Amino acid sequence: MPALGTLAAALELELKGDPDFEIASLATLESATADNLTFVSEKKHLAKLSKTLAGAVILHPDWSEQWPGNALFSETPYIAYAKASVIFDNHPVASGSIDTRAFVAEGVEYGAGVTIDAGACVESGVTLGDRVWIGAGAYIGHDTVIGEDTVIKPGAVICHGVIIGARCTVHPNATIGADGFGFAPGPNGWIKIEQLAGVVLGDDVQIGANTTIDRGALEDTVVEDGAIIDNLVQIGHGARVGSRTAIAAQAGISGSTRIGARCIIAGQVGMAGHLTIADDVHIGGQGRVASSVTEAGHYSSGTPIQPLRAWLRSASRFTQLDQMARRIAELEKLAGLDKKDGEGA
Amino acid sequence: MPALGTLAAALELELKGDPDFEIASLATLESATADNLTFVSEKKHLAKLSKTLAGAVILHPDWSEQWPGNALFSETPYIAYAKASVIFDNHPVASGSIDTRAFVAEGVEYGAGVTIDAGACVESGVTLGDRVWIGAGAYIGHDTVIGEDTVIKPGAVICHGVIIGARCTVHPNATIGADGFGFAPGPNGWIKIEQLAGVVLGDDVQIGANTTIDRGALEDTVVEDGAIIDNLVQIGHGARVGSRTAIAAQAGISGSTRIGARCIIAGQVGMAGHLTIADDVHIGGQGRVASSVTEAGHYSSGTPIQPLRAWLRSASRFTQLDQMARRIAELEKLAGLDKKDGEGA
Amino acid sequence: MPALGTLAAALELELKGDPDFEIASLATLESATADNLTFVSEKKHLAKLSKTLAGAVILHPDWSEQWPGNALFSETPYIAYAKASVIFDNHPVASGSIDTRAFVAEGVEYGAGVTIDAGACVESGVTLGDRVWIGAGAYIGHDTVIGEDTVIKPGAVICHGVIIGARCTVHPNATIGADGFGFAPGPNGWIKIEQLAGVVLGDDVQIGANTTIDRGALEDTVVEDGAIIDNLVQIGHGARVGSRTAIAAQAGISGSTRIGARCIIAGQVGMAGHLTIADDVHIGGQGRVASSVTEAGHYSSGTPIQPLRAWLRSASRFTQLDQMARRIAELEKLAGLDKKDGEGA
Repeated sequence: MPALGTLAAALELELKGDPDFEIASLATLESATADNLTFVSEKKHLAKLSKTLAGAVILHPDWSEQWPGNALFSETPYIAYAKASVIFDNHPVASGSIDTRAFVAEGVEYGAGVTIDAGACVESGVTLGDRVWIGAGAYIGHDTVIGEDTVIKPGAVICHGVIIGARCTVHPNATIGADGFGFAPGPNGWIKIEQLAGVVLGDDVQIGANTTIDRGALEDTVVEDGAIIDNLVQIGHGARVGSRTAIAAQAGISGSTRIGARCIIAGQVGMAGHLTIADDVHIGGQGRVASSVTEAGHYSSGTPIQPLRAWLRSASRFTQLDQMARRIAELEKLAGLDKKDGEGA
Repeated sequence: MPALGTLAAALELELKGDPDFEIASLATLESATADNLTFVSEKKHLAKLSKTLAGAVILHPDWSEQWPGNALFSETPYIAYAKASVIFDNHPVASGSIDTRAFVAEGVEYGAGVTIDAGACVESGVTLGDRVWIGAGAYIGHDTVIGEDTVIKPGAVICHGVIIGARCTVHPNATIGADGFGFAPGPNGWIKIEQLAGVVLGDDVQIGANTTIDRGALEDTVVEDGAIIDNLVQIGHGARVGSRTAIAAQAGISGSTRIGARCIIAGQVGMAGHLTIADDVHIGGQGRVASSVTEAGHYSSGTPIQPLRAWLRSASRFTQLDQMARRIAELEKLAGLDKKDGEGA
Repeated sequence: MPALGTLAAALELELKGDPDFEIASLATLESATADNLTFVSEKKHLAKLSKTLAGAVILHPDWSEQWPGNALFSETPYIAYAKASVIFDNHPVASGSIDTRAFVAEGVEYGAGVTIDAGACVESGVTLGDRVWIGAGAYIGHDTVIGEDTVIKPGAVICHGVIIGARCTVHPNATIGADGFGFAPGPNGWIKIEQLAGVVLGDDVQIGANTTIDRGALEDTVVEDGAIIDNLVQIGHGARVGSRTAIAAQAGISGSTRIGARCIIAGQVGMAGHLTIADDVHIGGQGRVASSVTEAGHYSSGTPIQPLRAWLRSASRFTQLDQMARRIAELEKLAGLDKKDGEGA
């Protein structure tokens, strides 16, 4: 258990209170107990301070009067909490060795301290940087290159000829580099278009569990440095995800769409193919993105849930909307209001 | 092939007809042949009875006059069918032994009759209850605890420190306990928040194929007893799914959202984070749940499909809805109707 | 590197220019370099011809005057490109042998030239046709039958009793034949209905990465010949996908729904259960299909993204639509317009 003073030093934060106070773990304001460290990241949560049982709190120096106990002060408490989480991290650590029960082809190139766990399969021509960790049962296809300190979790499948940068994590059962969905409509059915290009993930990229990133047909599918992608996301062939963009669970990006930097794509958003999305675009949950977005900003689509009977009426009226607009225009004409209706009426 | 009398006894149902009649299998009303048992679960399907070729039927005693042949009577025919399905079950059975080609760490604790199939990997510190079955190529992370009679199917990945109750099934390629999607926005990019908590599944929980349930950041992600979750569902970190709640395929529950008991969440529903959903809430398919639901009942959102050209007009008008409402209000003012418009007009 | 003349002969296309010109690879119009072959599939892309650096172009004979260089002429340039992609294919090839580190049960029936890679598990009773390729770590359940030239990619799980035709591909981490989501609501919770039927995939079927196709309860789930299914798609138990139908990523088809032939189902479409979809139906992205579609044609649902504040107003008004329609009707009555309103007003 680290002492509060040790934490303050490690996190480079100002300490108020007992530097020898020992912290057992991090916790939320609500669940913290006496030997826990908690944090307040937003002003609206200050009210909870009076009820927390935490032994110490990370908070903004401006809020110091709200909390009489042990404190670590940070201008950015949420980032301080993120950094503290690393100190309390309890994940298993890599063995730094190749398990004899892994299936590793001849001629694989290793950096120093590489870990390959039991049942993992690494094909010929693969290059693994220093301290790369290939989890149990993961698959690394021919000629794939993985940068230093990258972790491929159990069950993930990386197909042939994929390039993954440094410090990435690919979570379990993700699939990187499977064939893009490319078929030409022939007279006797679909004709497969072989997907000749690959996938390139930059440095510091996170890929969620069971996410799929397809290889390109003629141009690589690219995820740029620092992008973070959640679970069950689909990235189509030839798409490009900009630097530091975040994509939440179950979003789908169709082929050849290019998303700019620092975008936030919420859960279950769907994007059509061949679009261009500007930098700093935020799309709300389930957003239906059917055309390019050229301006930074927040966008949303969809309708809110209603009680079933009310919704049935709304949904039915939705199909009559054009008729309703025309009737309003007609009434306006009668009333001498004659407004321009914007579209076609 | 069980005789009808044997089935009646096993299912504790009243029999009409020939107790020695042998049943080869269960079938639908439409596809049943002469040695099949079928069922009628709802009154609206009674009309199909005259055309079925089935040799025997499970049905409600009130409907006995509709069917002259062999019958098993049940107040709840659908439940009787469910119980009969167990008798005709044809799934492979567990070997009850540890395959020598499995990768099992030292010090794993086993109950009686545990099965671990070839290529499965069980890490150190794991505890497996009686008759647990770990399928081929599945992965069980360090210190995970799995209750008796639970089955982990091939390719599923259970990360470290997960707790799974008794009589659960985790279907193939599901991922339980991967890191939640937690990152703090730093000046030079996303800073990972280590996910320190775990996942707890209660007893009798079903997890579908390729579903992902993330581990918590500071508090466990929890699925309570008897909840059933379909394929490709995302359950975010720190979320809680109440007892006996059913979640259909491709639904997504964001982090820290708490769903009550006995809810029914249809396919592709999306829920934002930090919401509270009451008990006995039903959400229709693709429902967009952006705020908490405090009352039991049925809710829905979205719009129905229309032929493309008609839809294009509806969708375009949707973006003009506020203007349309204001124009109606203006017309009403002119007409001296001056109704209160509900919102802002 | 094939010469252009060789390509012309292999693809049965008319050649203009130098038959000895060597082609290093296929490329897009934009990215092609001097030793690349590119193509123009649609008239609207002809304008890019003047800027391409490609050494040769596949294009329609009608467009020959637009391009002075080396050319291959095709009435269907996109199909010619698809066929050319096979010539330049760079995927790893099967070894044609059973890896000693695969886990293969006794009594499996093999055709000629079968490949089973390391860590794959093939259970008893399985039949594999000529040249079938089971990738590393894939799982083939008891009694499953796989037709000739079919490839099961790494990490895919095929459960027991599944039938897969010839020339299919099942991409990584897909799950075929897991239990359908069938439960009866009992007084003490959900009662599992054993899923007694299987899954049948026809010939020339493509299944995307991490896609799930559930086994049937009483009737098989069927994907007919030549259907192509993208990543992360859910096909529920007892559903049927017609011949040559294409289903894009993250679409979900609920149980017992039958989709006709040659349909195109876009990404994230959701279909309720027990529906019938006619042949040649196209559903746009995120389409909400809650009832059967009896006519061929293009359908869509949903609303377009708007800037957040504008969308909030539209979404709020959506819940007032029925009231708005009634107010229009009242105004019309006052104005003596008294139109029939279509629904209830």
